[in-house]
Amino acid sequence: MLKAIYELKSPDIEKAAHAIAVGQSVGNPYVRNSRETKALVKKHAATVESIEGGKVTVRFPAVNFGPRDGISFMMSVLMGGQMDIDLIEGCKLLDVEFGPLLRRFSGPRFGLEQIRQMTGAVDRPLIGGIVKPKIGLTPDGLAEVCREMAEGGVDFIKEDEILGDPSWCPLRKRVPAVAEALKGFRTVYAPCITADGDEVVRRARLAKSLGATAVHVNLWSGLGSYARIREKVEIPIFFQKSGDKVFTTGHHSLQFSLLCKLIRLIGCDFTHVGMWGGYMSEPEVELRERLYALQGPWCELPRVVPSFSCGAHPGMVQALVKRFGNDIMVTSGGAIHGHPLGTRAGAMAFRQALSASTPPPELAAAIEEWGLVR
Amino acid sequence: MLKAIYELKSPDIEKAAHAIAVGQSVGNPYVRNSRETKALVKKHAATVESIEGGKVTVRFPAVNFGPRDGISFMMSVLMGGQMDIDLIEGCKLLDVEFGPLLRRFSGPRFGLEQIRQMTGAVDRPLIGGIVKPKIGLTPDGLAEVCREMAEGGVDFIKEDEILGDPSWCPLRKRVPAVAEALKGFRTVYAPCITADGDEVVRRARLAKSLGATAVHVNLWSGLGSYARIREKVEIPIFFQKSGDKVFTTGHHSLQFSLLCKLIRLIGCDFTHVGMWGGYMSEPEVELRERLYALQGPWCELPRVVPSFSCGAHPGMVQALVKRFGNDIMVTSGGAIHGHPLGTRAGAMAFRQALSASTPPPELAAAIEEWGLVR
Repeated sequence: MLKAIYELKSPDIEKAAHAIAVGQSVGNPYVRNSRETKALVKKHAATVESIEGGKVTVRFPAVNFGPRDGISFMMSVLMGGQMDIDLIEGCKLLDVEFGPLLRRFSGPRFGLEQIRQMTGAVDRPLIGGIVKPKIGLTPDGLAEVCREMAEGGVDFIKEDEILGDPSWCPLRKRVPAVAEALKGFRTVYAPCITADGDEVVRRARLAKSLGATAVHVNLWSGLGSYARIREKVEIPIFFQKSGDKVFTTGHHSLQFSLLCKLIRLIGCDFTHVGMWGGYMSEPEVELRERLYALQGPWCELPRVVPSFSCGAHPGMVQALVKRFGNDIMVTSGGAIHGHPLGTRAGAMAFRQALSASTPPPELAAAIEEWGLVR
Repeated sequence: MLKAIYELKSPDIEKAAHAIAVGQSVGNPYVRNSRETKALVKKHAATVESIEGGKVTVRFPAVNFGPRDGISFMMSVLMGGQMDIDLIEGCKLLDVEFGPLLRRFSGPRFGLEQIRQMTGAVDRPLIGGIVKPKIGLTPDGLAEVCREMAEGGVDFIKEDEILGDPSWCPLRKRVPAVAEALKGFRTVYAPCITADGDEVVRRARLAKSLGATAVHVNLWSGLGSYARIREKVEIPIFFQKSGDKVFTTGHHSLQFSLLCKLIRLIGCDFTHVGMWGGYMSEPEVELRERLYALQGPWCELPRVVPSFSCGAHPGMVQALVKRFGNDIMVTSGGAIHGHPLGTRAGAMAFRQALSASTPPPELAAAIEEWGLVR
């Protein structure tokens, strides 16, 4: 049994709820025919469990899902045909409980605890750095920047999402160059491998073989792509959310905290969770719901590393920790590379911000530049 | 050069347009650093070509895209980071021109012309039938229904989207059963193979080897999945859109007619295009825009078969042809299986509706049941 909770907009909520349950399990909500016996309907039909205002809970029988029917198929059932029902003016998927179907998913292969071991960031928030080779950096230039970031003390480096496999900085050249530059550091490096279907799995395998210690995949590759990498390649996965509002806003959408739940389910080890106090700033209560989805107790699924970014700077680190605790990653691009004393100092300032009572020069320069948030 | 046209919502359209161009090509729109030389910026930066009201055209350099960077990566560039820019309250992707990058995509492998040859429906609209084994049909029951549909004269049968690979009707049993039942008919059969990443490619190959003559994939498998099936398996592909409003409505979304363009680009042979006059009814002008995207002249890309469904019945066929021409498919589930004289008669009535001046009994019964639309 799989349970979905929707927020519906409809002039007739009850009829709309019934139309989803019928349409998304046994047939056309408007037509019955001779082959639809009572016994079959009983076995395969979804049922409306409850209706409170516009909030509707529907239960889908587990028998409708095959053992290898992954998240893409599940989504087409949970959030598909209701778009074609005239009565339904809006349908937001708020939450899903997977019941016994949960066992078909593995969750993160590594998760927060193992990432802590890999990086040595055992009892403090992680510091992430974004590198943007999309400006046209050569593999050597990229490797040099990454080395400076590692020297400055970042635990994790991700390429931003706008770098595929272009001729001027192909994966097969840039990954070994960066891996070489990071020798001796415990910094995890996640090249961007966003690609289509089976190609993204191929790139994950290639990246690992060349020395990458994680991969960075944008959601336009499809939720199923993460699940397949999780199954086939032993490497931590960063869920890159750019494009998210297409999915998480509007009358027909998925609640962001549910997306976080799915991210954990399909086996991502890291995700951008949103931001508080940066150039993006989202409500604390919503961010906490997302954190709960990523890290709350859930059948022993490992916890995901939630990355806060979009305007993070060193003067904000303590404020983020105060509000969201130690089990986070603070990730920055601009405030590392745009630091008045350069990239290395930019990274150092973030690490210093984790503990310093009297600010050392790098942190002081960062606070001078971007201020201190309390 | 790849050109994207957006409809933006922002208090400062000009700044927002600039932020997209910078953010989606060379870097953080808010920060410059020492490695970003003028020459590199010139080579890799996107530029704002024009602004008219909220309508903004941005040009992305082709050099930013690698030869195997498919549609998923392209989407992460076209419709990604603008979600993280505070200034942008809404961003609808209206259209994309691919310029030389178009050559990286193949378009439909078969397209309307070859589908016409396969089915023998050479000089008339195609009739499609939907079969819904999700009620719990066994492979044999399903095969029997498909045979009745073929006997009644449908050109194309698709399983609806709510059937993955469940134990009670697995692909490896149902595809050969249906293929056997359809021997001697020219009806194309598309089992639903919606799945994750490389698994969907595997299922396409499996389905073909077992006798399927097309495949049916829901968009939650990701746009890239279609492109990969197109490259790797020689079989017509039906784009199943359920879930579409998540993508095509709201402040952050893709225009549906653009989605149609992408569907053609990534190699789908059929797609549900929407509906006029059924239980869904969309504006004629919008439907015509979608048809143009699927069938208008575009660098010799084959034309996609546009399927009208969601409440189609025989009394509506002439009205659809009058408005949208011969190069369409009229597709029905409910009005075939729910026909007063049964499935075979339901299919027959659709074929009869293509030409009949004096209605034969099956068509008469259908018109009696659902009316005649002019």
